[in-house]
Amino acid sequence: MDQRLADKRHTLAHLLAAAVMKLYPDAKRTIGPAIDDGFYFDFEFSSPISEKDFPKIEKEMRKLLPSWKSMERHELSPADAKKEYPDNPYKHELIDEFSGEGQTLSFYKSGEYWDLCKGGHVENPAKEIAPDSFKIDRLAGAYWRGDEKNTQLTRIYGLAFDTKEELDAYLMMREEAKKRDHRKIGQDQKLFFIDDIVGKGLVMWQPKGTIIRDEIEKLARETEEADGYSRVVTPHLAKQELFLKSGHLPYYEKDMYPGMSMDDGTYYLKAMNCPHHHVIYLHDKHSYRELPLRLAEYGTVYRNELSGTLAGLLRVRALAMNDAHIYCRKDQIKQEFRKALELTMMYFKIFGLNDYWFRLSKWNPERKDKYIDEPENWNYSESAIREVLDEMQVKYVEAEDEAAFYGPKVDIQFKSVIGRTESMSTVQLDFAAKTRFGLSYVDSDGKENGEVFVIHRAPLSTHERFMAFLIEHYAGVWPLWLSPVQVKVLPVSEKHFEYGRSVLKQLKESGIRAELDDANESLGKKIRNAKTEKVPYLFVVGDKEMESKTVTVENRKESEGAQPLTDIIQRLREEVRERK
Amino acid sequence: MDQRLADKRHTLAHLLAAAVMKLYPDAKRTIGPAIDDGFYFDFEFSSPISEKDFPKIEKEMRKLLPSWKSMERHELSPADAKKEYPDNPYKHELIDEFSGEGQTLSFYKSGEYWDLCKGGHVENPAKEIAPDSFKIDRLAGAYWRGDEKNTQLTRIYGLAFDTKEELDAYLMMREEAKKRDHRKIGQDQKLFFIDDIVGKGLVMWQPKGTIIRDEIEKLARETEEADGYSRVVTPHLAKQELFLKSGHLPYYEKDMYPGMSMDDGTYYLKAMNCPHHHVIYLHDKHSYRELPLRLAEYGTVYRNELSGTLAGLLRVRALAMNDAHIYCRKDQIKQEFRKALELTMMYFKIFGLNDYWFRLSKWNPERKDKYIDEPENWNYSESAIREVLDEMQVKYVEAEDEAAFYGPKVDIQFKSVIGRTESMSTVQLDFAAKTRFGLSYVDSDGKENGEVFVIHRAPLSTHERFMAFLIEHYAGVWPLWLSPVQVKVLPVSEKHFEYGRSVLKQLKESGIRAELDDANESLGKKIRNAKTEKVPYLFVVGDKEMESKTVTVENRKESEGAQPLTDIIQRLREEVRERK
Repeated sequence: MDQRLADKRHTLAHLLAAAVMKLYPDAKRTIGPAIDDGFYFDFEFSSPISEKDFPKIEKEMRKLLPSWKSMERHELSPADAKKEYPDNPYKHELIDEFSGEGQTLSFYKSGEYWDLCKGGHVENPAKEIAPDSFKIDRLAGAYWRGDEKNTQLTRIYGLAFDTKEELDAYLMMREEAKKRDHRKIGQDQKLFFIDDIVGKGLVMWQPKGTIIRDEIEKLARETEEADGYSRVVTPHLAKQELFLKSGHLPYYEKDMYPGMSMDDGTYYLKAMNCPHHHVIYLHDKHSYRELPLRLAEYGTVYRNELSGTLAGLLRVRALAMNDAHIYCRKDQIKQEFRKALELTMMYFKIFGLNDYWFRLSKWNPERKDKYIDEPENWNYSESAIREVLDEMQVKYVEAEDEAAFYGPKVDIQFKSVIGRTESMSTVQLDFAAKTRFGLSYVDSDGKENGEVFVIHRAPLSTHERFMAFLIEHYAGVWPLWLSPVQVKVLPVSEKHFEYGRSVLKQLKESGIRAELDDANESLGKKIRNAKTEKVPYLFVVGDKEMESKTVTVENRKESEGAQPLTDIIQRLREEVRERK
Repeated sequence: MDQRLADKRHTLAHLLAAAVMKLYPDAKRTIGPAIDDGFYFDFEFSSPISEKDFPKIEKEMRKLLPSWKSMERHELSPADAKKEYPDNPYKHELIDEFSGEGQTLSFYKSGEYWDLCKGGHVENPAKEIAPDSFKIDRLAGAYWRGDEKNTQLTRIYGLAFDTKEELDAYLMMREEAKKRDHRKIGQDQKLFFIDDIVGKGLVMWQPKGTIIRDEIEKLARETEEADGYSRVVTPHLAKQELFLKSGHLPYYEKDMYPGMSMDDGTYYLKAMNCPHHHVIYLHDKHSYRELPLRLAEYGTVYRNELSGTLAGLLRVRALAMNDAHIYCRKDQIKQEFRKALELTMMYFKIFGLNDYWFRLSKWNPERKDKYIDEPENWNYSESAIREVLDEMQVKYVEAEDEAAFYGPKVDIQFKSVIGRTESMSTVQLDFAAKTRFGLSYVDSDGKENGEVFVIHRAPLSTHERFMAFLIEHYAGVWPLWLSPVQVKVLPVSEKHFEYGRSVLKQLKESGIRAELDDANESLGKKIRNAKTEKVPYLFVVGDKEMESKTVTVENRKESEGAQPLTDIIQRLREEVRERK
């Protein structure tokens, strides 16, 4: 939020308080700052107010606004300041706190209203604030000074932007975000749940959520295989010794689950997959001709987040990461970075994400404490990556002093459907691992070469975060290839059940996920149910269809009429294969 | 081992000692029992002996044997007993230990040899022991009384069976088992390894082992999907509360990993998947029409085995189990049991296991302490399962008092290639879970019905155990569909590399796992290398093949001559699809 908008929002907090004090003279005002989407102000009311009072307050604010042609600063002694609030212990407390030896306190006046304030306003509210650019939003309880031992006050939230258009856009986006909330859709569609008896932050994937999760993993497997990755499977835990070697212990210990003491040492759930993959690399000798070695695994990692901070799929304690580590020679960095970025772009295309850009995060040569001290590798790799981005002709920005400790990285940023900027994918170069783990290969001259560069990449993020993103992205209207149920077969009446079952059988044998609705309901009801479930294709079967071995196809937009079953099955298989 | 064979082996231990004392009069004999495949005897030798001495010892044993026409028992006082071993502190120690107030000690005499012994021999060794039915096997060091603070003795192991034929069969089987050792093949073929820095009992699956593991899981997925299972994914851990509910805590606590204390309670790695699946069942209401609900997951479970007992893949601390839980009504038990057994039989057929039988383990109505007290359910389900086995017309035995606490089960027993009887698969009925977890469904009359029966089944065992079994079963000669490398392309010389690469590309694009050997070696060397790696198909490409767009195919047995690439690719795809 820029300072100008913050000043406007803070000015509006004053205006809100002025309106409230006019309408409820016995209310006690406390404080009111600018926030991310507007402002708030906390009051003690003598009797509760409700949303019904909002229009009245907004009206009063708009009535006062034209008279607020300036924000005049005044200085008062503490004693005088207290006189302004004869019956307000909150303000007295603040005044006592702000008062130093022989000090005065600043007040701001506009129109007839004034209030204790440190400043930060627009100069001429009447001119600078459009009367339709703000709105009272909602009420909440809030303890005085955030302490639950204190009185609970009423917080009035307001929204404020530069223009009515921006305010409207924000409201629409918020409405959309609510409709797309991954927790709500996840529950409605029975994709996943989190249950206190299993534990906070631990996701239980129900059958339908598992289908989508598996389809995403299948995409990863297929594309990684085509790109020359080798899949591995590693345990979810390891001995202390491994994490001491990797440096996760002690540097990362507070984020890890506590250790488990066994008869041969202490074991920890892993916080990252790299140490395990490095051990696999180290297990065999590698010749220069075998590199790059690309080890891929949807590896589960564990983070000891505080239980109070856990939220749906976005903040969890166990994450299955679309991980891979590419072990390559220095002369392969460029090629491997490019391949990883191209893979990411291919994924983005499949999921319909077009509005994205890259960010190259670089080191700061002055900060020897923050970055590994290998200037030559920094310079070489940063320009290699820049060349890749130039050659790929993609939009990118460079960010100084934003690299990881161990090397430069490229994040892929995009705007989500509800306008949020997200960074889901990252490709990172690591030249610290080679020394820490003693990674090496046998060079063409038969000598050990320790210059093994590691690329960490997770284009599909973690299953948890990516599913949350996809649910929001599609608002639960899954493309065919991801739909847990791809076809619903709807018999017109009971005498069409048998034919319906044979249609279902053929669909299943063709690898199409299908269900039959043989409930004792009207066809209209069945269609409405299937549409609520967002099933992409409905196959209605009645007398006519039974006779002609057809189904009447209804897609999400329209009816396609009757079609031979074999034809439509072939078409759907094609659409699934193309991930439509 | 039956008592008769044990007596024979123990007698042979005496004979071994007699021969040794004849050949090495200053050796000090200690003790010598019968063991699983023969016998041993521990000696202190004045100078080391080696395998080269075995023929001499065996010869002496065979020379003495005809004179051993009986085993005479004698009683000696402790003082007299000691005189028999003037210079042998080991025997003196034993004599002191066995001597009670006024007690005598038993000695056994045969031929000219006699020794302190409690008994257990054949009556007439000369007659009862065939001279070619035993063999000195190997040497080992062994501390006196198994205590490493004591002197290290030399242990001589002997093998002994009833006949030469049995001895030979045992030797052959042992040789075969050594060749098929899953740890050795696992290492040679780079399938998996276990590394101390990660931890004992925690398997690291390398790329080639992961391919086989994934193929097995794919088989499970496909067949389970066809059988109406739904896949789920659940976390590897849960809060204490869940395992208190399931009863794993405290009853199973010593086998579980220690708890991890987090800010909201204590978490444990799961020892079984059922509690998590029950939570998924409980999350939704189920109507009688939705049952059976079949939840499947290759779920990883954790067992806190002592580090000293861990061995290869056969005893590990983390196991990925081919698990599923079938929630069904009482009237569905028969059908679901049958389906689960048939699925298992299908798997056995795919893996070429034909020599198997079933074992129905039943309760014991007298043991109220050992079995859940629901006589009606026991009687109903045991006869339902018996009916299934009868209807399937399979070979089965019944075992009284061998059921699980919670219900009857069927184990599938088979003979492994090296003659061991194994039980890899089990199907178990559980009528304890419904009460413990409050499982229920809504019946046709709209009422809650608590009679939900759970079937636990794991036909493909755990990945770890099943892989160990398969490695031994195939001796590393994998069928095509499981082979990590299915085709090796071998260019005759450098000028055929380009064509070789195009063949490789086409193979990969057709989903065939292939490698190109472009090393600077002779074709003969390349062929030998590929055969050592047990690659099922070699494609040799030279001038002739390049010209005619063919490859010369060599399978594991013979050369098939030149074939058009497209034809052989189609054939291999077919063989893979049929899991040949």
